[in-house]
Amino acid sequence: MKTIIDFIKKGTITSVKGFKAGAVNAGIKKKGPKPDLGILYSETPCTATGVFTKNKIKAAPVIICQKRLPSDDIHSIIVNSGSANAVTGRQGMQDALEMTVLAANKLEIKPSSTLVASTGVIGRKLPMDIISKGIDSIELAENGGHDFAKAIMTTDTVSKEVAISVNNGLFTIGGVAKGSGMIHPNMGTMLCFLTTNAVIDMDFLTDALRKAADVSFNMVSIDTDTSTNDTMIIMANGLANNERITGNSKPAEVFQEALNEVCIYLAKAVAADGEGASRLIEVNVKGALDIESARNCARTIAASPLVKTAVHGCDPNWGRIVAAAGRSGAEIVELKTDLSIGGIQLLEQGIALDDNYDEVSKAMESELVVIDLNLNLGKATATAWGCDLTAEYVSINADYTT
Amino acid sequence: MKTIIDFIKKGTITSVKGFKAGAVNAGIKKKGPKPDLGILYSETPCTATGVFTKNKIKAAPVIICQKRLPSDDIHSIIVNSGSANAVTGRQGMQDALEMTVLAANKLEIKPSSTLVASTGVIGRKLPMDIISKGIDSIELAENGGHDFAKAIMTTDTVSKEVAISVNNGLFTIGGVAKGSGMIHPNMGTMLCFLTTNAVIDMDFLTDALRKAADVSFNMVSIDTDTSTNDTMIIMANGLANNERITGNSKPAEVFQEALNEVCIYLAKAVAADGEGASRLIEVNVKGALDIESARNCARTIAASPLVKTAVHGCDPNWGRIVAAAGRSGAEIVELKTDLSIGGIQLLEQGIALDDNYDEVSKAMESELVVIDLNLNLGKATATAWGCDLTAEYVSINADYTT
Repeated sequence: MKTIIDFIKKGTITSVKGFKAGAVNAGIKKKGPKPDLGILYSETPCTATGVFTKNKIKAAPVIICQKRLPSDDIHSIIVNSGSANAVTGRQGMQDALEMTVLAANKLEIKPSSTLVASTGVIGRKLPMDIISKGIDSIELAENGGHDFAKAIMTTDTVSKEVAISVNNGLFTIGGVAKGSGMIHPNMGTMLCFLTTNAVIDMDFLTDALRKAADVSFNMVSIDTDTSTNDTMIIMANGLANNERITGNSKPAEVFQEALNEVCIYLAKAVAADGEGASRLIEVNVKGALDIESARNCARTIAASPLVKTAVHGCDPNWGRIVAAAGRSGAEIVELKTDLSIGGIQLLEQGIALDDNYDEVSKAMESELVVIDLNLNLGKATATAWGCDLTAEYVSINADYTT
Repeated sequence: MKTIIDFIKKGTITSVKGFKAGAVNAGIKKKGPKPDLGILYSETPCTATGVFTKNKIKAAPVIICQKRLPSDDIHSIIVNSGSANAVTGRQGMQDALEMTVLAANKLEIKPSSTLVASTGVIGRKLPMDIISKGIDSIELAENGGHDFAKAIMTTDTVSKEVAISVNNGLFTIGGVAKGSGMIHPNMGTMLCFLTTNAVIDMDFLTDALRKAADVSFNMVSIDTDTSTNDTMIIMANGLANNERITGNSKPAEVFQEALNEVCIYLAKAVAADGEGASRLIEVNVKGALDIESARNCARTIAASPLVKTAVHGCDPNWGRIVAAAGRSGAEIVELKTDLSIGGIQLLEQGIALDDNYDEVSKAMESELVVIDLNLNLGKATATAWGCDLTAEYVSINADYTT
């Protein structure tokens, strides 16, 4: 079975039949009249599962989602930006639970069928009175995904949204994500919500989501800081009426491929919109001894501050790339290594090709800078994404709370 | 036996009796008439040992030093800045060997008694004609340590030099280091050279040097990038005529304590002079379950770009510190955690003390910002050092080669 993927124009989580969403500016964020509270809702109960931060300090909403998932009876997710509800103790846990109760009452469902996610400053208590009023005023709409996507933004400059139709409408998948800061491969983005109408087995869905995270958000690094709130959730409402997708079937391969596509699209959007970023960096590692080495190598290069600043300055300082590969833990032999930037070769079997620096520098002025590293030792490959490091990253983060 | 440490005024590697040094501006560095080639020399053969980068891509001079050390017959070290002689293939290895031959001929010693170190841009071949002439013109002097310290600087803004006299002249230890960029705990600084006149056992010296690296340079992070050239070498010429220091003796404890002091002094100087840095960050972790956890936790906080930018902006955004601790791998329980910045408590048993933000922000304007994190789980402690992340770091690194 072939996988045919069609991107839906202006697609988002509510491009998937049966999902509604809405958001309001409740006033949690101090700056500007931007939405900061949103609800995603499915009338049909969904099969839902999640992938969460590996940080030992977990925000209250993460702990609640981990307890409730996977599940065959999820109807909604309530989200807020402006406060992460992390390191907020028992009060934070009560507040997160209260958010699910308030959303459930509004939607006339069980609190246990509601998930919750937060993003923003760590250590600040949620303003529950504002949130309570905000939840009341949210209006759900069939095209409300765009507002929902905006409600989870913090320092993001654009919303990240996508939807695809797979194999001529066999099923659809939609997704929104937020990123920008505290982004590093140890789960992935801070928040990513996915919807699908596929009829799908819960165990397979859990497995597929983890695999998709591994090739997408777990390959993105903005600043090596892993958040307390990283959350990636998928809800499947089954309205596509397809034959149930279970593991080790042809449709399972199609679903995995399609889910990867959506997640990689969102992960690249997160990397491209990293705090202060002006360029997207794509690192392709080939010829590694094993997949773990390939992944570590690609991520280490994409995360290296020295590589990121060199890309910012269009500086073909390729030694920094090789040095990053060398400290990544991957096996690397200097005299076997090939390296190209922007398709122009700089290193062949460890020997520098010095005379094309100007050409490479020119190529690095592109919005997308592709680094190809071939270790020529084995067959494993991996791709990671990052962004350049700019003075704006520093100014954004030097005064984020104050 | 007590350890009495007296800092020698304007102390450096040649403050230790029997060591001479010298440096010239050979012209390897393109910018400015700064020294870029230096020699450290002891007429008496030295017991010498080293600690080197764990990066799998090792510069040619690192490979040569690793082959020659430890040894009881080392007389000199030849160093250059301006080119790292890394990822330079067979030619790079020949050039590094040639540097030891040229220095040895000048000094009338065996090439195998000479060590070599390089720092600068990766991937550029050494200009051997310039280096050859430069070596000829170096004049060694009993107070030449200062020039030597300058010759290893790259983007450093000040030289890092120190010498101490231990127990009223029982022995002395001197040291110089360079740091600035590509500095991350996986060995430590790019280059550090230590001298002592102590009579000392080679095995104990190797052990002591590794231990000193672990509490000093290995606890410093500027930018998480581990260099291809990290090198730390100690030469002991034995002129103090003390009773031979061997392991598990009282004088061994004194020597270890004194060596730690010198290395911590230099490591802090490296952190304070990190590329673009305006503040030194000291992170003290207490109450960890084990020493490895304490070390990882302290280093992860000191290395976090979000912590570093917050310190730059005098922003008491303590959530970033707790989040960094949470991803460090150390066991951490939110409701047991205490946190202070600049001696002012912000978190007590996981509960935020919100009303002193302005006071903390004021305290963070200091040149030294001390972060105290008590995990209250065990007895292990560790201290790490870093610097704030500034827009200047970005501009320095965006155009380093070009």
